[in-house]
Amino acid sequence: MFSDIEASKLKIIPLGGLEQIGMNITAFEYEDSIVVVDCGLSFPDDDMLGIDLVIPDVTYLEDNMDRVKGFIITHGHEDHIGALPYVLKRINVPVYATRLTMGLIERKLTEHNILDSVRRKVIKFGQSVNLGEFRIEFIKTNHSIVDAAALAIYSPAGIVVHTGDFKVDYTPVYGDAIDLQRFAEIGHKGVLALMCDSTNAERPGFTPSEKTVGSAFDTIFSEHTDRRIIVATFASNVDRVQQIINSAYKFGRKVVIEGRSMNNVIETAQNLECISIPDNTLIPIELLKDYPDEKTVIITTGSQGESMAALSRMAGDTHRKISISSKDLIIFSSHPIPGNEKPVTKTINALLAKWAEVIFQDAHVSGHACREEIKLIYTLVRPKYAIPVHGEYKHLMAQARLAEELGIPHENVFILNSGDVLELNDEGAAVTGKVQVGAVLVDGLGIGDVGNAVLRDRQILAENGIIMAVMAIESVTGMLVSGPQLVTRGFIYVKESDAVMDEMREIVQLAVERLSDRGIHDHNKIRNTVRDELSSYIWKSMNRRPMILPVILEV
Amino acid sequence: MFSDIEASKLKIIPLGGLEQIGMNITAFEYEDSIVVVDCGLSFPDDDMLGIDLVIPDVTYLEDNMDRVKGFIITHGHEDHIGALPYVLKRINVPVYATRLTMGLIERKLTEHNILDSVRRKVIKFGQSVNLGEFRIEFIKTNHSIVDAAALAIYSPAGIVVHTGDFKVDYTPVYGDAIDLQRFAEIGHKGVLALMCDSTNAERPGFTPSEKTVGSAFDTIFSEHTDRRIIVATFASNVDRVQQIINSAYKFGRKVVIEGRSMNNVIETAQNLECISIPDNTLIPIELLKDYPDEKTVIITTGSQGESMAALSRMAGDTHRKISISSKDLIIFSSHPIPGNEKPVTKTINALLAKWAEVIFQDAHVSGHACREEIKLIYTLVRPKYAIPVHGEYKHLMAQARLAEELGIPHENVFILNSGDVLELNDEGAAVTGKVQVGAVLVDGLGIGDVGNAVLRDRQILAENGIIMAVMAIESVTGMLVSGPQLVTRGFIYVKESDAVMDEMREIVQLAVERLSDRGIHDHNKIRNTVRDELSSYIWKSMNRRPMILPVILEV
Repeated sequence: MFSDIEASKLKIIPLGGLEQIGMNITAFEYEDSIVVVDCGLSFPDDDMLGIDLVIPDVTYLEDNMDRVKGFIITHGHEDHIGALPYVLKRINVPVYATRLTMGLIERKLTEHNILDSVRRKVIKFGQSVNLGEFRIEFIKTNHSIVDAAALAIYSPAGIVVHTGDFKVDYTPVYGDAIDLQRFAEIGHKGVLALMCDSTNAERPGFTPSEKTVGSAFDTIFSEHTDRRIIVATFASNVDRVQQIINSAYKFGRKVVIEGRSMNNVIETAQNLECISIPDNTLIPIELLKDYPDEKTVIITTGSQGESMAALSRMAGDTHRKISISSKDLIIFSSHPIPGNEKPVTKTINALLAKWAEVIFQDAHVSGHACREEIKLIYTLVRPKYAIPVHGEYKHLMAQARLAEELGIPHENVFILNSGDVLELNDEGAAVTGKVQVGAVLVDGLGIGDVGNAVLRDRQILAENGIIMAVMAIESVTGMLVSGPQLVTRGFIYVKESDAVMDEMREIVQLAVERLSDRGIHDHNKIRNTVRDELSSYIWKSMNRRPMILPVILEV
Repeated sequence: MFSDIEASKLKIIPLGGLEQIGMNITAFEYEDSIVVVDCGLSFPDDDMLGIDLVIPDVTYLEDNMDRVKGFIITHGHEDHIGALPYVLKRINVPVYATRLTMGLIERKLTEHNILDSVRRKVIKFGQSVNLGEFRIEFIKTNHSIVDAAALAIYSPAGIVVHTGDFKVDYTPVYGDAIDLQRFAEIGHKGVLALMCDSTNAERPGFTPSEKTVGSAFDTIFSEHTDRRIIVATFASNVDRVQQIINSAYKFGRKVVIEGRSMNNVIETAQNLECISIPDNTLIPIELLKDYPDEKTVIITTGSQGESMAALSRMAGDTHRKISISSKDLIIFSSHPIPGNEKPVTKTINALLAKWAEVIFQDAHVSGHACREEIKLIYTLVRPKYAIPVHGEYKHLMAQARLAEELGIPHENVFILNSGDVLELNDEGAAVTGKVQVGAVLVDGLGIGDVGNAVLRDRQILAENGIIMAVMAIESVTGMLVSGPQLVTRGFIYVKESDAVMDEMREIVQLAVERLSDRGIHDHNKIRNTVRDELSSYIWKSMNRRPMILPVILEV
C-alpha cells in the first residue's frame, strides 16, 4: 500500500467515540508530535450499575506524554469536554478552544480545583495554533451550542478536516453561518481525509435552521396568553434559551431559569456575551409568585426525563418552589435521546395527570447535519479518504455508503474502531496497529476502581440480593461455637419469611456439623459446602440465585 | 347524580391496565354477579430489579369470590392472559375465550399444572355466554393476533361495549374483517358505555391492513434472491408469520422457525388451523446447512432486542446453530416498544458490524386502531359514556379529547384509575369508591414475597454494593474476641484496595474497642456506631453510599 521509500505518515488514532455516541477523543500523530482533538465523557450504559460517568482510557497518551502537544476542543458539550479535568490531571498540556467552549471548560477545571495549573488559550475562528509538526485552524460551524468549530489539521502528510459536531445553518440565532467558503478553499488546496459527523447520516434532507424554533415559540406564545408557560430544553443550548427569552420579552413575560446546569451555562454565556437578555426580564425564582401566571415563563432542565432534574421534580410534586396545575402549558423543546423515551413519557404522563397541557411538536430542531448537509461538506472538501466519526456503527455505515455514492472509492472509506491506528499519506492509507483503549468508570470520587468484577457482583446483588451465613468456629476443635446467623438483604421480606429463614439456618448448621463430625476444619471447604447446599435449596424452592456469602470467624 | 329511587347500577372496576400498557383486568359487577374481562401481566419497570413479571392484586375478587362468575378473555396476548394461571389458583372460576386465545391459555395452564382443574369454554364470534345477571357476546375484530374479540356486555343497567385491543382491517390475512355491522346494530339498541382501546389514540389516520406487510415482504424477497433472509417479529403474530411463509414459498425458500415462544405459538396455531403452511416448507433448524443460503428464511424472535432471544444470540455470536455474515439480510418486522429502543439499536449495530444488511422500514404495521378507526367505532356504537382504556395517561387523554370532539359531553367521559369504582346506569355515572389494587411482583417461584423494602435494598446494592463487618464478642465482657472481618461485594475491587480495606478494618476495630472501654455492650449500639463511622469515612473519601452491615456473633 505504501511505496518502498516512504515519506513519514500521519497517524489517526481514535481513543474513543466510535461504536457509540459519547467519549469523543482522537489523537493525531506525526513523528514526535501528538495533538488530541476533544476529550469527552459518556454516560453509563444500563448495565454499568452505580456508575456516574465514563471516561476514556488514555494509557496511550500517558505512555507518549513527552510528545503530546495539547488538546484541541471543538465545542463545549459533555461528550467533547467532560473527561478533560480527569485527563489533564495526568497529562498536563495546554488546551485550545473557542470562547464559550473555554468558558465551560474553565467552569469544570474550577470545580476540580485545577484551573490555575492548566494552560489555556482561546482561539478565534480563522486563527490557527502551531503545535509541533501540526498547525490547527479553527473554522466556524453551527451546532446546538454556540462557538462550535470544525478543524483543519495541517500536517506534513496532508490536511485532515474534522467537522466536529455540526449542521449547516444559513440563519443562525447567534453569530455567523458555517464558513462554507473556508471549507471550499481548503478543499481546493487538496484534503487528505475528512472526518465528518455521522449522527444524522441516516436522515434525509436538511436539518432546519435553529431560527424556525423561534417562530414556533412565537406562535405557541401567541396562542397561550392566558397561562404560565414552562419550556424544557437542553441546558447547553444557549441559542434555544435566547429564543425563548425573545418570545417571552415580546409577549411581556418575565423569565425564570431553573435547574443547576442550565443556570451554570447561561451565567457563563452571559459573562461572555453569547446571549443577550433584555433588562428586567430575568427574575429569581423567589419572585415568581409576585407575577401573574400568564406573565411568566420558566425555562428548565429535565427535557430528557432525568429523575433529579427540575421538570421531573415539578411533575413529581417534589419541587420546592413550583407546582404544576391545569393552568400550565409545558413545551418540550427537545427530542428524547435514544434510551430516554420511557422516562420522558413518564414525565409527560405525570404532567397530563395534573391536567396541564403538554406540547411536544415543532419546538425543536437537531444540531447535527442530515444527509444533504453531509453531501455538501464532502463536495466542498473533496477528501481523498473518508473517515466517518461521531456515531454508532449504523450511523458510521450510513455515512460510509454516502461517501461512496459521492465517488470516494470503497477502499478509501475507513470505518475505524476505537484504538485503531490509521496510517495515511497521499500514497495510501491502512490500519497498521492497535493501541490500548477502553472505558474507565467513575463512581463518586473513585476513578477506575470499579471494573467488570465489581459490576458483575452488583448485577447479581441487584437481581436477587445477598444471603450471609455468619458463624464462629473454635479454632482447635472446629466446633461451631456461635451462629450460624443468617442475614439477607434484597432477597425476601424477612419479617414474613420465618419458615424460609429457619430452614436455611438449619441447612447451614447441619452442613457445618456434618463436616465437623468428619473432622473437616478447612474454612474453604466449609464455605463451599454451605454455599452449595444453600444455593441448591433456594434454586429448588424459589428458582432464584442470590449471592451467598458464608463468613467464618475463628475463636 | 342518581335519582332518589334508584335502579340497581352497574359497577365497572378496573383492577389494572390503566396508567400503563399491560396488566389488563376489569371487573363488571351487577348486584350479586361479577364477571372479569381479561387477566394480564405486565413486564417489570426498570426499577423493579430482579423481578420477572408483574401480576395484578386481585384481593377485591378474592373478597367477593362467591360472586365471581368467570373470566372473559378478549385475545391471547400476555397483557391479557399472562396472569390467569396465577389468579386461577386463587379464584377457580370458568374461563371463556375464542379458539386461539384458549389454545394459548391452555398452554399456560399446562405449564402451571392446572389444566385439569380449570373449566374452560371456547366461544365463537357471535355467540354469547350467560353469567349471572350478565350476558356477554363475542364480536369479531382485527388485531395483531388471530381470534381477537370485542365484547358486548349486557346487564340490566345497560350495554357496555369493550373493544379489546383492535384495529379495523378490511382485508385481514386470516378470517373475517371486524364485524362493523354488529357494532352498528348494538349501537342502534343503545349503548350505555364504550370502553375503547387507546394505544394509538394520538396517531392520525388509519392503521394499514396487515396485508400491506405481505406485499412489502414480496418486494424485499424479490430484490434479495441471492442471500439468506432472517425476519424478526413478534412471536404471537401468527398472520405475520403466515405472510413470511407465503413469501418464502412463492420464492422457493425453506423456512426455519427459531425461538421458543414463537415455536410454541405457531405449534398451537397449526393445531387449531389458524395458519396454513404448505407441505415441505418448514424444516428443522438442524437441516438448514443442507440448503443453499439463498433458499432459506429464518423467522425468529428477538425483534425487541431481548438479550436472551434468538436474534440477539445470533448478533452476539452466542447462537449455537446460526451465525451472521455479510450474506445475510435481516428484516425487522416490528417497531421497538417504548423503552426497547436501545437494545434494538444495539442488536442492529451488532448485525451491521458483521456487514449484514438490515431492513427496518415498511415491514410492520400496528395492531391498534388509529384516530379515524376510533372515531368510526364511536360513531357506530354511539355510547352515552366514554371510558378510554388500554393506555398510559397520555393515550387515555387523547381518546377522551376525541370522544368530546365526537359530541360526548365532557362530564360523560371518564378517565379512570385502577381501583376506581364507576357506578353507572342510564340516569348517571360517577366514581363512588375505591377498591384495593396494586402490582404483585413475581420473582422466580415467589409471588409477592418481594415488595418495596426488598426492592429498595436491591437498588442500594446495585448502586454501591455492600460492606459487611463481622466480629465475635465475648458475651460477658463485651470484648472483641475475633474479627472484625470485612467482606465487600460490588463495592471496590478488593485486590487492588488493600489500603482502603485496612483503614476500614481499623475504623471498626477502634470503634468497638472504644465502646467496650466505656462499658457499652449493647449490640444495637455497637452496630449503629460501626455503621455511622464506616459510612462517614466512605462518603468523605469516595463519595459513595454502600450498604453497611455490621454482624455481631456472641461467644
